[in-house]
Amino acid sequence: MMDDKVKKQAIARLARAEGHLKKVHSMVEEDAYCPDVIHQSRAVQAALAKVDELILHGHLHSCVLKDIHGSESENEKLVEELVGLFKNRP
Amino acid sequence: MMDDKVKKQAIARLARAEGHLKKVHSMVEEDAYCPDVIHQSRAVQAALAKVDELILHGHLHSCVLKDIHGSESENEKLVEELVGLFKNRP
Amino acid sequence: MMDDKVKKQAIARLARAEGHLKKVHSMVEEDAYCPDVIHQSRAVQAALAKVDELILHGHLHSCVLKDIHGSESENEKLVEELVGLFKNRP
Amino acid sequence: MMDDKVKKQAIARLARAEGHLKKVHSMVEEDAYCPDVIHQSRAVQAALAKVDELILHGHLHSCVLKDIHGSESENEKLVEELVGLFKNRP
Repeated sequence: MMDDKVKKQAIARLARAEGHLKKVHSMVEEDAYCPDVIHQSRAVQAALAKVDELILHGHLHSCVLKDIHGSESENEKLVEELVGLFKNRP
Repeated sequence: MMDDKVKKQAIARLARAEGHLKKVHSMVEEDAYCPDVIHQSRAVQAALAKVDELILHGHLHSCVLKDIHGSESENEKLVEELVGLFKNRP
Repeated sequence: MMDDKVKKQAIARLARAEGHLKKVHSMVEEDAYCPDVIHQSRAVQAALAKVDELILHGHLHSCVLKDIHGSESENEKLVEELVGLFKNRP
Repeated sequence: MMDDKVKKQAIARLARAEGHLKKVHSMVEEDAYCPDVIHQSRAVQAALAKVDELILHGHLHSCVLKDIHGSESENEKLVEELVGLFKNRP
């Protein structure tokens, strides 16, 4: 299960993303300039990718890490590396 | 301005994406399993990327094909915008 | 350290990618059609992304998994999920 | 055909990318730490994506801006190619 802090952050970001997606919708309805619509749509996609990272991070902590018995700092390092790999996609 | 058919399709897809994003939101609220939430979130991102393609396609047809006969500086602006769209992907 | 099988596979794929990258290089030198060059370049990028997945997978197995003490099938499931998340990016 | 300046820049970048890819290869052979290998591999992918942008920019200038006055079916081909480049990203 998701950590309470992660959950709150994820929900807040998703609510904002919903608002921004509605904005994309209304831009299309109001015939906004196409490249502007695409940029706005991509901002939503980037925001959702950030939520994914947040959730993955929480997942590794509250689900995966529970079963790793290295020292806390070693475990932490493994998690940071995994998230870093996930995040820094070209 | 966007072609009517493209506009209709884009709006229909955006409406569906909004529904799926609400689903992501409620999955988080209901403590769904993290990887499932991320997959659902990515489905929304992929759907928005499809809308971007649709809009780009329309843009190339209805704006670029017509405006490319403009002045050199206007052409330059169109090219920079296209490269910008290609480049700034989330 | 990398598992021998993973290492062999990674090296074979990297050698192939090097050959394909040289092909991109010579296409540019021989004035190939631009979209064809870009497609070829992207094939190299996709091939490298596959190598990344292979290596990440090996990493989770030979480094991360060593310290997880769930049942083997549970551990395996965790790893598959992580790699799946990493892989299915929009 | 590619503009001479673009061609030179692309070739220089591709030569560098080839060097960096060889580095990835030798890192795997020398059992470098997996996340380090992946970061290096992604640097190569990012460098190739930059070359793609450079080539696309040149293509828009030297091919599309000139050929767009062609027949409707030729224009259509150019548009489809551009959307294809936008779409089939690794």
